[in-house]
Amino acid sequence: MLITLTSDFGHKDPFVGIMKGTILNINPPARIMDITHGITPHDVSEAALVIAESYSYFPPKTIHVVVVDPEVGSGRRPILAVTDDYIFIGPDNGVFTAVFASQKETLDVRCITAEHYFLPKRGSTFHGRDVFAPVAAWLSRGVSVSNMGESITDYVTIDLPSSARTGGVIEGSVVFVDHFGNAMTNIRQEDIDSLISSNPSGRLDISLSGNQATLRTHYLEGREKELSGVINSYGRLEFFLYKASAAKAIGIGVGDPVTVRLV
Amino acid sequence: MLITLTSDFGHKDPFVGIMKGTILNINPPARIMDITHGITPHDVSEAALVIAESYSYFPPKTIHVVVVDPEVGSGRRPILAVTDDYIFIGPDNGVFTAVFASQKETLDVRCITAEHYFLPKRGSTFHGRDVFAPVAAWLSRGVSVSNMGESITDYVTIDLPSSARTGGVIEGSVVFVDHFGNAMTNIRQEDIDSLISSNPSGRLDISLSGNQATLRTHYLEGREKELSGVINSYGRLEFFLYKASAAKAIGIGVGDPVTVRLV
Amino acid sequence: MLITLTSDFGHKDPFVGIMKGTILNINPPARIMDITHGITPHDVSEAALVIAESYSYFPPKTIHVVVVDPEVGSGRRPILAVTDDYIFIGPDNGVFTAVFASQKETLDVRCITAEHYFLPKRGSTFHGRDVFAPVAAWLSRGVSVSNMGESITDYVTIDLPSSARTGGVIEGSVVFVDHFGNAMTNIRQEDIDSLISSNPSGRLDISLSGNQATLRTHYLEGREKELSGVINSYGRLEFFLYKASAAKAIGIGVGDPVTVRLV
Repeated sequence: MLITLTSDFGHKDPFVGIMKGTILNINPPARIMDITHGITPHDVSEAALVIAESYSYFPPKTIHVVVVDPEVGSGRRPILAVTDDYIFIGPDNGVFTAVFASQKETLDVRCITAEHYFLPKRGSTFHGRDVFAPVAAWLSRGVSVSNMGESITDYVTIDLPSSARTGGVIEGSVVFVDHFGNAMTNIRQEDIDSLISSNPSGRLDISLSGNQATLRTHYLEGREKELSGVINSYGRLEFFLYKASAAKAIGIGVGDPVTVRLV
Repeated sequence: MLITLTSDFGHKDPFVGIMKGTILNINPPARIMDITHGITPHDVSEAALVIAESYSYFPPKTIHVVVVDPEVGSGRRPILAVTDDYIFIGPDNGVFTAVFASQKETLDVRCITAEHYFLPKRGSTFHGRDVFAPVAAWLSRGVSVSNMGESITDYVTIDLPSSARTGGVIEGSVVFVDHFGNAMTNIRQEDIDSLISSNPSGRLDISLSGNQATLRTHYLEGREKELSGVINSYGRLEFFLYKASAAKAIGIGVGDPVTVRLV
Repeated sequence: MLITLTSDFGHKDPFVGIMKGTILNINPPARIMDITHGITPHDVSEAALVIAESYSYFPPKTIHVVVVDPEVGSGRRPILAVTDDYIFIGPDNGVFTAVFASQKETLDVRCITAEHYFLPKRGSTFHGRDVFAPVAAWLSRGVSVSNMGESITDYVTIDLPSSARTGGVIEGSVVFVDHFGNAMTNIRQEDIDSLISSNPSGRLDISLSGNQATLRTHYLEGREKELSGVINSYGRLEFFLYKASAAKAIGIGVGDPVTVRLV
């Protein structure tokens, strides 16, 4: 049984290693894969985006654990969610907002209350180790989700920045800057396709914070020092600079406004 | 059989991958988990702290390999240590000081001299690959520790900064700054509990480099821009800033003095 | 069956995790090991060096996937290469130049054209996920390399900076700066041995960008703030500073000229 880990723990501390040890202590043959531990510290929105764009590449029955948890130790609840193909485990802070939105029909969200599955000695700062890792390990050993707690409907969701179309204009924003300095937006290929279909003879005009860009089919088609757009591997509009970091060179950041216009 | 790796190799070089390849070349079914490779380069004290706080979360029989080894290639010896539940492998430079202190009764430390278990072509700069990885791999295949070399008692230990209590005052220091910019100290919950028990009506006064802080029960209880303390997941006093990096905002570093006073 | 991954994806994005999920979705028991994901973005030469120095530490039959792919989505071909002991998969951009040079006799390079093994929904920006991961997964399940495409001989190679000897002088350059700030060169131990054998009574004079250095047998032999050389774990001349970063302190970078002279 496969368990994935996503967190904002970075790579200096032994936190991720300790979670893995905790899982293997409970279920020695469990397989564990990292999705990423490079989420910006405390950034629940970024984690919500990353897990939503990643989870479906894993085999059915995978257990996805997400620990971006600034409210750890407070009253915030630990939850798990069962969908047709996966189980998600993490804090009830909205980190699964985008996952849940895509799985509405079959979703069963439960508040994890079965403390006898937690580590016996618990602290108030690291539920990744004390709660989420052991619950994932026990589920991977075959314990039923119904043993972990009751179903709930009042789980937390957060507002994730979305794009909106008004006539011939889509307005969106940068939602993630990747390792290469490329700026991913919340405008999807289908949004653009639908815009085009409203006037197939029109010409697309795309811009980021007022900077015009040219839509390319792949990175190599970009021109040096010229802002370009591309549909990225998530099917989203992304801005990039040819073999350079758009984030560094132009100072792009999350939240920057993006416009796609049919002219 | 599980092998863990801890080092200061970072994530740019292929060093960690090469160690894993070396292990799997000797014992293909071996399982390998990273604790961390983000130890500050050459910082044996930091590695001693990290392995001591991490090892016990792994299943019994785990082989823990630690490679923070500034003296590699010199006369410093490679050692292994057997405790009730684990085997530790690394350089004889004090990196296991805190582990050994917690395992005094059952400790068997051996100097690794069985060169026929090392890689045949060896250099003087990367014993992680040439010595520690192959020895771990052979042990994980069932070779007995007694085949690796004789028991020794003159292994190296280092002075790890400790806290001390004088009357109603505990004096300690910051020993680690984590990925979130939180500052972990060498003052433990039990030190504070014992202080309180000496005068249960007293009030705790905690400070870091002269900056007063308030002891909180969890991170969310902190107030913006106000230094707070918490008992962290290792059971140690830790200083933090509410959803921010105390290290960056206040310039906290390892060695900074910490005082806990009962007033 | 073991699959290794090498890339310039870094650790912020979920790219590496998504590749692993894709592999496990096709071949659940596949084993996956990271060599490194810290290649400098778009630096095909660096990746060529790293894979060439790493691959042979892994067990025979290992499948090595390298994704440093600035031309992704353009006409550049996906290739695989079979040698006596390994399979290599990646873009046809020269990233296997140094591997191929060491495996000339037995090399079979193929252009991957069997699109039915790719992910059904493909983009133009992430062939690591859409092409290379699934092909590696299917090969690890036992699909024959001959099913993936025809053999080719016009695969791309790149010029990797090499050292040259003229009389009593070897001229080379820095080709990699590691996590510790040590500067690896393209001058090998055998180059130096051969120089020495031409005049065994001579004295070696080594320098980096005109800075004299002393050749040491291991790191600890270095002296504080004094540039030293050592034969590193790849059997190459490397410059270092005693327990410090030569790259930071002296400003060493890739391409800096290196001279070894017999005087």
